[in-house]
Amino acid sequence: MQEKQRRSRPERLTREAKKPGTTLASTNAVNKDRTPVWVKTPQREPAEDVCWGRQPILDLLRNSPKKCLKLLIANNVRPPFLDELTDLARDQKVVYQLVAPEVIDGLCPRVNHQGVACRVAEMEPMELEPFLASLPKEEPLLVVILDHIEDPHNLGAIIRSAEAAGASGVVFGKRRSALPGGTVVKVSAGAALRIPLIGVVNIARAIKDIKEFGLWTVGLENKAGVGDSIWIKNKIPSRAAIVVGSEGEGLSRLVAQSCDDLAYIPISGATGSLNASVACAIVMFEWRRNN
Amino acid sequence: MQEKQRRSRPERLTREAKKPGTTLASTNAVNKDRTPVWVKTPQREPAEDVCWGRQPILDLLRNSPKKCLKLLIANNVRPPFLDELTDLARDQKVVYQLVAPEVIDGLCPRVNHQGVACRVAEMEPMELEPFLASLPKEEPLLVVILDHIEDPHNLGAIIRSAEAAGASGVVFGKRRSALPGGTVVKVSAGAALRIPLIGVVNIARAIKDIKEFGLWTVGLENKAGVGDSIWIKNKIPSRAAIVVGSEGEGLSRLVAQSCDDLAYIPISGATGSLNASVACAIVMFEWRRNN
Repeated sequence: MQEKQRRSRPERLTREAKKPGTTLASTNAVNKDRTPVWVKTPQREPAEDVCWGRQPILDLLRNSPKKCLKLLIANNVRPPFLDELTDLARDQKVVYQLVAPEVIDGLCPRVNHQGVACRVAEMEPMELEPFLASLPKEEPLLVVILDHIEDPHNLGAIIRSAEAAGASGVVFGKRRSALPGGTVVKVSAGAALRIPLIGVVNIARAIKDIKEFGLWTVGLENKAGVGDSIWIKNKIPSRAAIVVGSEGEGLSRLVAQSCDDLAYIPISGATGSLNASVACAIVMFEWRRNN
Repeated sequence: MQEKQRRSRPERLTREAKKPGTTLASTNAVNKDRTPVWVKTPQREPAEDVCWGRQPILDLLRNSPKKCLKLLIANNVRPPFLDELTDLARDQKVVYQLVAPEVIDGLCPRVNHQGVACRVAEMEPMELEPFLASLPKEEPLLVVILDHIEDPHNLGAIIRSAEAAGASGVVFGKRRSALPGGTVVKVSAGAALRIPLIGVVNIARAIKDIKEFGLWTVGLENKAGVGDSIWIKNKIPSRAAIVVGSEGEGLSRLVAQSCDDLAYIPISGATGSLNASVACAIVMFEWRRNN
């Protein structure tokens, strides 16, 4: 419909410069004068190699200065925050530049960037083998395995809760999943820069490796009646990996079959499910309660 | 800075129609030719009297048809969903109209509206007195009290988890808080239309009334060491109200003093806090585990 409307009025569109990278501002479709306006399409989300926001940038400079390629500070940022940033950047040998606030608006559209952004080196997730080798052999231990969490807000929220629950790392599929970028760092309150994130190609294969390492793998089902309640004694043992599925579909069949055990969170009401990050947090803290 | 730039080039701006409701597209500040482009400012968020999305609209039509003032369906929505919507609207006597998809884009900018939106009557939160009068006098019972949750996503997430945990209602302050609108209904997966939402003017006063009604009120602190862990036996008794503070500051002092008891969730790591909706869910499900 929108395409059709565009094609039917070519003569009105030619007057405006039809530059590459411009498109019809579709949110203006209800404006009254019906003049199509061509604007550079604002990106829906900031690029994934950009971090923003005061606390996340401070965390980034403190914990992962080597990932900071270039720090951009809006020239309306005032002391003491300005000094804190520039001092830290100098100490950590990070290149920084003062720019017009609009430059940061352009880099981080639609978010509250608080006048500061940083281009970061692509986050290289860890490999599974060295991660498992780094884990203690005896103590209580929790690993979180995510089966296709596609929403970066959910991924960030899970990483934040995983750090708070004391999990050792978060394993995620490199394909069909949200990858850890600026949104994830922001939503995780910086935890994505602090706890190990392990990228794997095949989740079922990773579960097999984690079982061989000696962790008890529990798949979280979003339907009651498959497996037992998470609150049954020792359902989540002290050395465990919990496997959480996507928001919509839960665990894929192959992944569910790969787990040692399945469990669900008893819930009421018509919604019939919890948000994936909330469900994951409830199970992680159930592990923590027992340890 | 942006203001200054606008004022410094008046001659270039007059050529474009400077209609009311237009502004400089600030996200274009980095475009290369530096021509300022005037566009109608897209709203950052949909208006709060609009609901959108397939499942929330179906929930709305089924559970609260009287709240539906007008249902708008994009003319690219296809059967069987189209028939499901129109049949339901006819059964429930809700006025509907087929419109161009752009109309719904304009009404619900920046969200995945799935071709359907509904103008709803303002949600009238319940009063505290009739809500308390409606509660059973003997059974296990949980009420959630929110002290200034300002983010509608967090409010929606808490309402979704509250329904799933089996809470009887969610009390929130009418001032300085997110109010239940379209975002809240969507994020709550429709739970905001099903469980009682109680708006109060003064949270401390509401806590006093809820204590008098006979619930044990537990304030959730975001610092360890104030009060006890939520996992101590009977910390969250079977007839309880939990009080959760804002994302940034936690409980206000007056509210914390009004509670019968304070508790915290034991956490690790540098983040130092959980997201308010995650923390609230962990406590609600801790109540559920004991009941």
